[in-house]
Amino acid sequence: MVDRTGHRTVPETPRRTDRLSGPRYGNRPTMKDVAARAGVGLKTVSRVVNGEPGVTPETERRVQESIDALGFRRNDSARVLRKGSTASVGLVLEDLADPFYGPLSRAVEEVARAHGALLINGSSAEDADREQELVLALCARRVDGLVVIPAGDDHRYLEPELKAGVATVFVDRPAGLIDADVVLSDNFGGARDGVAHLIAHGHRRIGFIGDMPGIHTASERLRGYRAAMEDADIQVEDAWISLGVTDPERVRRATEEMLSHPDPVTAVFAGNNRVTVTVIRVLTEQSRQVALVGFDDIELADLLQPGVTVVAQDAAALGRTAAERLFRQLDGTLRAPERIELPTRLITRGSGELPPAD
Amino acid sequence: MVDRTGHRTVPETPRRTDRLSGPRYGNRPTMKDVAARAGVGLKTVSRVVNGEPGVTPETERRVQESIDALGFRRNDSARVLRKGSTASVGLVLEDLADPFYGPLSRAVEEVARAHGALLINGSSAEDADREQELVLALCARRVDGLVVIPAGDDHRYLEPELKAGVATVFVDRPAGLIDADVVLSDNFGGARDGVAHLIAHGHRRIGFIGDMPGIHTASERLRGYRAAMEDADIQVEDAWISLGVTDPERVRRATEEMLSHPDPVTAVFAGNNRVTVTVIRVLTEQSRQVALVGFDDIELADLLQPGVTVVAQDAAALGRTAAERLFRQLDGTLRAPERIELPTRLITRGSGELPPAD
Repeated sequence: MVDRTGHRTVPETPRRTDRLSGPRYGNRPTMKDVAARAGVGLKTVSRVVNGEPGVTPETERRVQESIDALGFRRNDSARVLRKGSTASVGLVLEDLADPFYGPLSRAVEEVARAHGALLINGSSAEDADREQELVLALCARRVDGLVVIPAGDDHRYLEPELKAGVATVFVDRPAGLIDADVVLSDNFGGARDGVAHLIAHGHRRIGFIGDMPGIHTASERLRGYRAAMEDADIQVEDAWISLGVTDPERVRRATEEMLSHPDPVTAVFAGNNRVTVTVIRVLTEQSRQVALVGFDDIELADLLQPGVTVVAQDAAALGRTAAERLFRQLDGTLRAPERIELPTRLITRGSGELPPAD
Repeated sequence: MVDRTGHRTVPETPRRTDRLSGPRYGNRPTMKDVAARAGVGLKTVSRVVNGEPGVTPETERRVQESIDALGFRRNDSARVLRKGSTASVGLVLEDLADPFYGPLSRAVEEVARAHGALLINGSSAEDADREQELVLALCARRVDGLVVIPAGDDHRYLEPELKAGVATVFVDRPAGLIDADVVLSDNFGGARDGVAHLIAHGHRRIGFIGDMPGIHTASERLRGYRAAMEDADIQVEDAWISLGVTDPERVRRATEEMLSHPDPVTAVFAGNNRVTVTVIRVLTEQSRQVALVGFDDIELADLLQPGVTVVAQDAAALGRTAAERLFRQLDGTLRAPERIELPTRLITRGSGELPPAD
């Protein structure tokens, strides 16, 4: 067995939170607001809203007036959740077989369970129509909230559900054309750090092999690559960049092309875990050493020779943060949607510290 | 980067199918049976069953008589599925973060999609109560069928759902106390082959580190280990066997104890992918070589030094076979529950071919 190489981490960048325009939760009148306006207790409002007995016609009229005036809408989701009987949260993933989503899903599930809710998952398989179909199917099955890793970039179809009180948090990628809670990794900063690390080890001809350019994370990481190259005054050549599907055949071809170029790259930045796994395989077949930094950590990456240097996301923290915000939406303690960005972590293990071969 | 070692496969054992006692689907009268008995066409029965117009009162009476006589019960699930609008299939997993379930889930999803159905997942987290809660929650959300990797060993709670026409297939582990379709890997045969392979390479003191003994796959693999040892007339010592949770701390301790024994094991058989990953880490820290065969294949296992010899299951085939049976239940073409066992495959890469160190 190989020796385990040590790993060093760079300091984490501080967590940033940016408020988006327009408070959504803050706009929504609560039962408390209705009670205050009608001059009655919360229990009385609850009785009227739920059609329970014990309220005089005059009081009921006053409460109803207050409800109409404020535009109060009973939040069925929160109600179901409090009752606990059918509480459930939906999680829409992008690919069931991508190991990146394993810890993310499990973290969402653990938070859901701590709140007495079941987690129901589904996969969009990177298809916007399928995402919409699945999200609406979950809503039709009365989930109380949704954590969505979006495949599409237009989520206006969700507006009626949001208005009806279905709590929603986007994770890994932002929502499109709606104002919603979003929890992301710092994809731009992580990629920039990883590429700067290769530059610091003497590389100038650095390839970038990424996912499809329409995917938010892929374009952000490419942007990070370009920023690091620009910071070092390196003119990026077209032949150094390859974007597309992450299946092994495409990635293998792209890697081999970059390496067979007359003036080949001396290092590769791999845009995600699926890409990295294939690039590792191609590099093991090369006669000369090529440096590698991959976005996303990979199981056993530290036991390879050399160990694989990665920009690691905290997938569990993404899931946990998203799920916790979801339940804070449901219990009414959030005032407005936010965009939360979690830091990434450069883990050096050998492959990213190799000098240029020439 | 390390060299990629070649791998050799042993011939696959033939696929076995054993009929269980008592046909379930065969007992259920179909719309065709109703039509034949009433002497009318299928469309006429369909009209009566669905309350559509275009049937004379006399014909309707005859059809109803036939329905009553046969005890025909409309299969709402199949009906919903045919209509396609809310068709969905539930998949109950054991652990969302276990990479073994990734390809299995994706295969179920692909079959579901080919049938125009959505897949909804949930995880029992290896808890029988949670499994039941989740299964019933999915039924309440009107899934048309269920693929279940069971955590519990008593599934009589499912009987009302089965009678109501919810198609169900168990996968990876059998159902308990009910007659149901089951798709398994040949866990016994696979483990026996893997241990026999170590014995063939000169090992006699072989450790077995497995999952909790209550889990079907864990006990079957232990049985395979014992069978191989008995075939070779090796008396198994208690200190060579460790069963329990698969978290890294427990597995590390178990492995280290076996290796620090006065008369230590020279080889380890790891009971599943979670165990194997930790055993690999412990073995890299040892000064002497210890052979290893793991149950389940692992990503990048072929790129380690030495490559990790495994008994591979075909997780995608498990999922695909289970899902295909589910849809055959729904379209009424299955006659009785079956137990299907898929073969495993020994992939030799180096770690399982190391000779004993002493």
